[in-house]
Amino acid sequence: MNLFIEIDRASKTSMQNQIYWQIRKLILGGYLRPGQSVPATRLLSEQLGVSRNTVSIAYERLIHEGYLQTRKASRTFVSSSLPERLLLLETTAPAAQRIEKLRPVTPVVVFRGRAQTVVNRSRRKVPIDFWVGRPNAATFPSKTWRRLILKNLSNREGNLTEYGEPAGLPALCTAIANHLASARGIKAKPEQIIIVSGIQEALNIVARLFIEKGTQVAMENPCYQGAAFAFESYGADLLPVQVDENGIRIRDLINHRASLLYVTPSHQYPTGCTLSLDRRIRLLEWAWNNGSYIIEDDYDSDFRYDGPPLTALAGLDQRGCVIYMGTFSKSIGAGLRVGYVVLPPELYEPAIAVKTLLNNGHAWLDQAVLADFIASESYIRHLRQIRRIYMGARNCLVDALTGAFGRVNLSGLDGGMHVMWHLPDHFPPAMNLKEIAQDKGVGIYTLAGGGAGYDFGGGPYTNRCVMLGYSSLREDEIKEGINRIAEAVGKVSDSRQRGRK
Amino acid sequence: MNLFIEIDRASKTSMQNQIYWQIRKLILGGYLRPGQSVPATRLLSEQLGVSRNTVSIAYERLIHEGYLQTRKASRTFVSSSLPERLLLLETTAPAAQRIEKLRPVTPVVVFRGRAQTVVNRSRRKVPIDFWVGRPNAATFPSKTWRRLILKNLSNREGNLTEYGEPAGLPALCTAIANHLASARGIKAKPEQIIIVSGIQEALNIVARLFIEKGTQVAMENPCYQGAAFAFESYGADLLPVQVDENGIRIRDLINHRASLLYVTPSHQYPTGCTLSLDRRIRLLEWAWNNGSYIIEDDYDSDFRYDGPPLTALAGLDQRGCVIYMGTFSKSIGAGLRVGYVVLPPELYEPAIAVKTLLNNGHAWLDQAVLADFIASESYIRHLRQIRRIYMGARNCLVDALTGAFGRVNLSGLDGGMHVMWHLPDHFPPAMNLKEIAQDKGVGIYTLAGGGAGYDFGGGPYTNRCVMLGYSSLREDEIKEGINRIAEAVGKVSDSRQRGRK
Repeated sequence: MNLFIEIDRASKTSMQNQIYWQIRKLILGGYLRPGQSVPATRLLSEQLGVSRNTVSIAYERLIHEGYLQTRKASRTFVSSSLPERLLLLETTAPAAQRIEKLRPVTPVVVFRGRAQTVVNRSRRKVPIDFWVGRPNAATFPSKTWRRLILKNLSNREGNLTEYGEPAGLPALCTAIANHLASARGIKAKPEQIIIVSGIQEALNIVARLFIEKGTQVAMENPCYQGAAFAFESYGADLLPVQVDENGIRIRDLINHRASLLYVTPSHQYPTGCTLSLDRRIRLLEWAWNNGSYIIEDDYDSDFRYDGPPLTALAGLDQRGCVIYMGTFSKSIGAGLRVGYVVLPPELYEPAIAVKTLLNNGHAWLDQAVLADFIASESYIRHLRQIRRIYMGARNCLVDALTGAFGRVNLSGLDGGMHVMWHLPDHFPPAMNLKEIAQDKGVGIYTLAGGGAGYDFGGGPYTNRCVMLGYSSLREDEIKEGINRIAEAVGKVSDSRQRGRK
Repeated sequence: MNLFIEIDRASKTSMQNQIYWQIRKLILGGYLRPGQSVPATRLLSEQLGVSRNTVSIAYERLIHEGYLQTRKASRTFVSSSLPERLLLLETTAPAAQRIEKLRPVTPVVVFRGRAQTVVNRSRRKVPIDFWVGRPNAATFPSKTWRRLILKNLSNREGNLTEYGEPAGLPALCTAIANHLASARGIKAKPEQIIIVSGIQEALNIVARLFIEKGTQVAMENPCYQGAAFAFESYGADLLPVQVDENGIRIRDLINHRASLLYVTPSHQYPTGCTLSLDRRIRLLEWAWNNGSYIIEDDYDSDFRYDGPPLTALAGLDQRGCVIYMGTFSKSIGAGLRVGYVVLPPELYEPAIAVKTLLNNGHAWLDQAVLADFIASESYIRHLRQIRRIYMGARNCLVDALTGAFGRVNLSGLDGGMHVMWHLPDHFPPAMNLKEIAQDKGVGIYTLAGGGAGYDFGGGPYTNRCVMLGYSSLREDEIKEGINRIAEAVGKVSDSRQRGRK
C-alpha cells in the first residue's frame, strides 16, 4: 500500500517531521484504522524518495508516542489501543458548532461577572478624546527608567529566575512606606504593604478576604465600575450611597450594616469631589462601630493643584479600620501594572495568602526599578513635573469652557486628571451631548455609559453631567475639542428654537 | 498658652510641616480639645523662633483640612465638629491588641484558603538544596534580554502609560501560538490565548469560570499544591485520583462526574511520570462524554531529554475539551511572572472578562520583550542550551546515586527538572530521611511536606519517595549532596543494626 504523504522539500519543517505529522494526521483523521499496517520503512523511503533513516526516525517517534506499534521488527501497524470514537475526521466546521451538535453533556460556566471598560476597544476612533484617567505619554521618565533597568539587570539574574516574596520586594515596600508618610500622612510599616498589579488586583484581594454570597458592600453612587463589578462578581450585594459635593453622604450610610465601604476620598470617581474632613472622621467612626473596613482607593491623590491634599483616611485612622490602595498607573503609567495595598496588621497574613494563591507575587524587575525610582526622589521630582503639566491642561480646559459657554459649573477642579461638568439647563441631556460631540470627533463621557464610571441611577448627576479628562491632551486639542462642542451645541439650540417657532 | 511643639532644625522635614504634624497629633491625640484655642500665629512664631509666615502656612493647611477653624481673623481654635470619640490618645500598644479590646463589632474575614509554598521563606538555609523547579540563574539570557528591553523602550512610551489589551499583547499571543504549533503540536489561534502572570493566575481564571461551592474537581494524587489550594479556596470539592507510573489512573476517574480535571501530563508533578498516549486519548474521551474540561498544566514540557515529547493533550484534542496552560517560569525565570492559557474558543470571552476583573491585563514591557525573544528564535536556542545543561545535571545525579547506593529506582528521568526517588526498603521513611539529610545541610523533599507537592494520602509514594530537583545545582554540589546523604544513611543503618544486636 502507498500512504498518502507528500514531502515538501522547500519547507522549513524537517522531512522526518513532515512524515511524522502526516501519519499522525492520517491516524487521528481515521484514514488509518487501529490494527492496520503501515508500509515498511524501506518501502516508504522508496515511495517518498527519502533516506530510510529519515522514515525510521519518524516511525520511532510515532511508536514512542503510542500511535504505532511494532511486532518483532516484522510489521508496524496502527496501535490497536486507540479508541475508535476519538478517531474523528478532521472537519473544517468551527469548533463551537461541532461541540453544540455533538457533546453529550454540556459544560457549565458559572461565572456571571461583568468586566469594567478601562480598556475600551471601540473607543479610540475619536480624534480628540477627553477619556478619563489617561496619563500624558510624553511625561514618561524614559531616560531614568532605562538607566535604572540597566543598573538592576547587571549581575542580578538570580532575581529573574527565582520566585520573590509574594508580598513584594522589601525595598519597594519600604520606599512606598516612606513616600506615604510624607506625601499622604500615612504611617505604615513595610510589613503592612503588598505589591499588586494595580488597584483592580487589590480590590480582588480584599474581595476574597471578605466577600461571599450576600455580603453587603456600601459603594459611592456613582462609583468606579471596576470596584462595583469586582465585588459583584464575588456575590456581594452592593448598597449605593449617594455622593454630593462633599463626597459620600454619611447620613445615608448610617443605616447600612455593610462589611465593607469602598470610597475614593481624594477625588471622587467619577464626580471629582473631595471628601470633607468632617465626613472622613465620621466615616472612620462608622467603620469602627460597625465592624466594617473602609477601602480607600486613593487613585488620584498625586495630583492636587489648589492647596495641600487632605490627609488620607488611612492617615487619620488610629485604629486599623482602613485598607488603603494606591497605584502608579496614573502617576507613571498604566502599562507598568504596579500598585500597592496597605493593610491593617491583622489582615496582612491572610492577604498574603490570597495574593500567593492568585499569582505567587509580582515580577521582580519592575519592582526593583520602581524602588530605586522612589527612593532616589526621582519620583517626587517626576510628580512635581507632571502636576505642573496637568494643572496647565486643567487651566486651559477651564478657560476654553468659560470662553465658549460663560460661567460653567465644574466639580473636581482641585485635583486629579478630569473634571465633571454640570451642564447648563438649556443643554441637551448628557447622553445626547455625548453623541453630538462624538459626531464632531470629540469624546466626552457620561457617568453611566462611557469611561469607567458606574451609576446606580437615582442621583442628580446621571443626565446632567459629563466627564472631561484633560491629562493626556495638548492645549490646542483641548481648545479645539471645546470649540467643536460649542459649535455643535449652538446648532442644536438653533434647530430647537426653530422647531419651537 | 504654649503648645508643646519642638522644632528640629536639622530635620529634612520643613519647619511648617513639623508644626502642621505636631498640632495635628495634639488634636488627634486628644491634647487639644474641640473648641480650644490655639495661639495666634505671632505668639507661636515667637515661642518657636520661626517666622510668622511659617506658622501661618501650617495653620492654613490645618484650617483647609478642617482641624482648625477661625473666626473673623480674631481667634483660631480646634474645630468643634471633630467627634470626641475619635480623639484617642495615640498609644504605643500594637494596633491588633487595641482592636481586640475595643472594637464594638469585630469584622469577619471569610477567606479560609491555604497558600502554596512555592516560595518558602524558612527553606533557604541548607547549603545544598535539591528544591524542585528552580531554574539555573546562570542560564538567564541577560545580554539578549537587555538588548530587547532597550529596543522596545525606544520611543514607545505610550505603551507604558496606556492600558493594553486585557488578553495580552497581540504580538506575544501570536509568537506563543506559533511556538506551540511546532513545539507541542497544538494548533491554536492567537485569539484563544490570554497572557497571565504564570500558571497560578491561569488556574484562578479557570476556577472563577467554573468553580462555586461544591463543584467537583478531579485531581491527580499526589498533585501540585498551588492548583489544589486555589480550587479549594473557591469552594471546590477535590476528588483525588491516584497516579501510577503511566500517570493518572483513568479507571479510577471513570466513576467521577467532575466538571474539571487538572493534570500535568508531560512530567507529572510531583512524581515525574509521563501520561501515556493511550490514557491521553481516553482522558479526552472521558471529558467529552462527561461535559468536563481538562486543565492541562504543561509546566515542565520544555525539558525532554530522552526521545521526543508526547503531543500535548491540547494537540490531540479535536473537540475543544482542553484548557492548556504554559509558563516561562521554568524555561526563562520565575521572577518574570509570565505565562499563558490557551482556551477553547467558547471560553475565550468569559475568560477575558475574568482576567480584566482581576487586573486589567499584563505589564507591557515584559510582553514586548518576550514576543521578540520568541519570534526571533532566541527562545528556541535558549531552550536547547538549558536542556543540555539540565540533562548534564540529571546524568550527574543519576551517576552519583548509583555510585552511592547501587541500583536506584527513579521516576521522571525522561525530562523536567527533578526526579522522584523510590527509596530502598532498608531506608528510613521519606520524612525521616528528609530530616537526616537536612541535618547534613542537604535539602530533599517528601511529596507531602516539602516542595509544592500536595499529597491526599493513601498512595504508595507518600512514605517511600523523595523528590530531588537538580536544575539549579552545579555538578560538584550534586555529588557532595548525595555523598552526604549516603554517609548519613550509612550511620543510621549502622546504629539500627547495633540496636538490633
